[in-house]
Amino acid sequence: MPSEFDLIQRHFTRATRHTALAVGDDAALLQPRTGMQLAVSTDMLVSGTHFFADTDPEDLGWKTLAVNVSDIAAMGAEPRWAFLALSLPAADEAWIEAFARGFFACADAHGVDLAGGDTTRGPLTLSVTIIGETAAGEAVTRDGGRAGDDLWVSGQPGLAALGLAALQGRTRLDADGRRACIAALQRPQPRLALGRALRGVASAMLDVSDGLLGDLRHILERSHTGALIETAALPLARLLATGADPVLCRHCLLAGGDDYELLFCAPAARRDTVRALATKLELPVHRIGSLTADSGSIHMREADGTLAPLAPNGYDHFA
Amino acid sequence: MPSEFDLIQRHFTRATRHTALAVGDDAALLQPRTGMQLAVSTDMLVSGTHFFADTDPEDLGWKTLAVNVSDIAAMGAEPRWAFLALSLPAADEAWIEAFARGFFACADAHGVDLAGGDTTRGPLTLSVTIIGETAAGEAVTRDGGRAGDDLWVSGQPGLAALGLAALQGRTRLDADGRRACIAALQRPQPRLALGRALRGVASAMLDVSDGLLGDLRHILERSHTGALIETAALPLARLLATGADPVLCRHCLLAGGDDYELLFCAPAARRDTVRALATKLELPVHRIGSLTADSGSIHMREADGTLAPLAPNGYDHFA
Repeated sequence: MPSEFDLIQRHFTRATRHTALAVGDDAALLQPRTGMQLAVSTDMLVSGTHFFADTDPEDLGWKTLAVNVSDIAAMGAEPRWAFLALSLPAADEAWIEAFARGFFACADAHGVDLAGGDTTRGPLTLSVTIIGETAAGEAVTRDGGRAGDDLWVSGQPGLAALGLAALQGRTRLDADGRRACIAALQRPQPRLALGRALRGVASAMLDVSDGLLGDLRHILERSHTGALIETAALPLARLLATGADPVLCRHCLLAGGDDYELLFCAPAARRDTVRALATKLELPVHRIGSLTADSGSIHMREADGTLAPLAPNGYDHFA
Repeated sequence: MPSEFDLIQRHFTRATRHTALAVGDDAALLQPRTGMQLAVSTDMLVSGTHFFADTDPEDLGWKTLAVNVSDIAAMGAEPRWAFLALSLPAADEAWIEAFARGFFACADAHGVDLAGGDTTRGPLTLSVTIIGETAAGEAVTRDGGRAGDDLWVSGQPGLAALGLAALQGRTRLDADGRRACIAALQRPQPRLALGRALRGVASAMLDVSDGLLGDLRHILERSHTGALIETAALPLARLLATGADPVLCRHCLLAGGDDYELLFCAPAARRDTVRALATKLELPVHRIGSLTADSGSIHMREADGTLAPLAPNGYDHFA
């Protein structure tokens, strides 16, 4: 059986583009560009909690990095370096090779160097720390939302949760819908170009990993605002077109996680700017409501005008 | 049961000293000092592989950070920011509180900000990424060793492995020795001051996590040298004084891991400098041999003058 060091060497050592010293010493050495701040995020994915043990390892490699790249996108920053800690039940080289292929596909797509890591024996667990750069003061945080700001979401939230429901046999989808939903679950596309374009435009931003409403609450807490959601503005049509039950579709859109779309606020005066940059990026954005002065509350306004407060129900790993 | 977010908030949110934006956004924001390079390292600790499931959580919290600080020490850098990803089988608040106490004790001792992290449900697994700073070009890497350089080790390698042997019932130790050995195992002291003092003095350096000879091999590979160990110079006396079997003591010194002492090379002309800085730091250092031109080989010279090559036997997690 190849040793740990052999496996790391063989599959995780690649030429780096912007790393002074990568894998192979006690620490990697990185040279940030002058005047840049670092944006750093860590995510841990655990077999059985975040993914099925039999998930295709190439998809898993992609997703392990993509969810971290998404955090950097949500700051409006540029991803630069990743560090991968990997606990494996056995030194299964075919699995490691496929995982590395997916991981590096995502790294190459987004200009990320794998600059270091750790491999050990244990239950299948993947932990990535990603470091991005942003000009000092330009990062888009969660705390800049103001009452009256528009509330926007990118792309198609809900697809990944529908994909999960399909894999778990909780819903039937037509063939095209099933393919799209499972792709959204297994190969999420971090919205880097959008995040970058929204610097100086969005007042607050995050990526939706745990569900739109649950993550919205983080913006509301940090920005000391409330939110009003216009249900007629929610992008439900594509979900409904998969053939899934409408109640499930709405639940997946509002409470499903794992889409890694960007949820952001922007002053109403910037509405045309947001639309223009979305058109340029060929990525739909949906204005689904607005921030309110009623701190911490979320209200839903239905198409018939009825207004109802929402009870907290965001997904929580320990709930 | 408190939610994940409550637990994180309660136990892992502390005031930071040098972090622009810490826990609570998609990413932390850090401002490196002008002209500094970053040294970044990741270590993952898995229950059952790296520690016993019933390890005192406060000790575990200390050690989880200490092993990462040690990697920064081994570069001659200054630790600054840590990111903690934590997978827990249950939201056991008493355990988390004790773990956080140990973790922050180590953070406070070494000037480290906990700047971000992730908490999830799963088998007990701890992954830390640490970021340190060093003036560009000043880091001490593993590749600068030259034939003729002295080979040094700090402190008392072997204590932690003896402690592990005692906990596993593989040896009896006297009471004082047992206490010292278990403390070395559970509360390793990163050699930050020594690492920093060796900038510009040591030609190559690493921290001994997997065993002195196994880790020495990493220096030899990167420096393209061999090594000659003078067994009479090995610091065995303190290990023998615990009452353990001499063969076990020698094995623990040469092949035991987890001490996090610094193993380093320095030109013979710097011998007095090394001794002087060790005296100033009140940390013993031992000159245990030298680098040779016989690339990749390790020879042991016994007290009687006999010289024998060593077969590879460094500890390897997958061996």
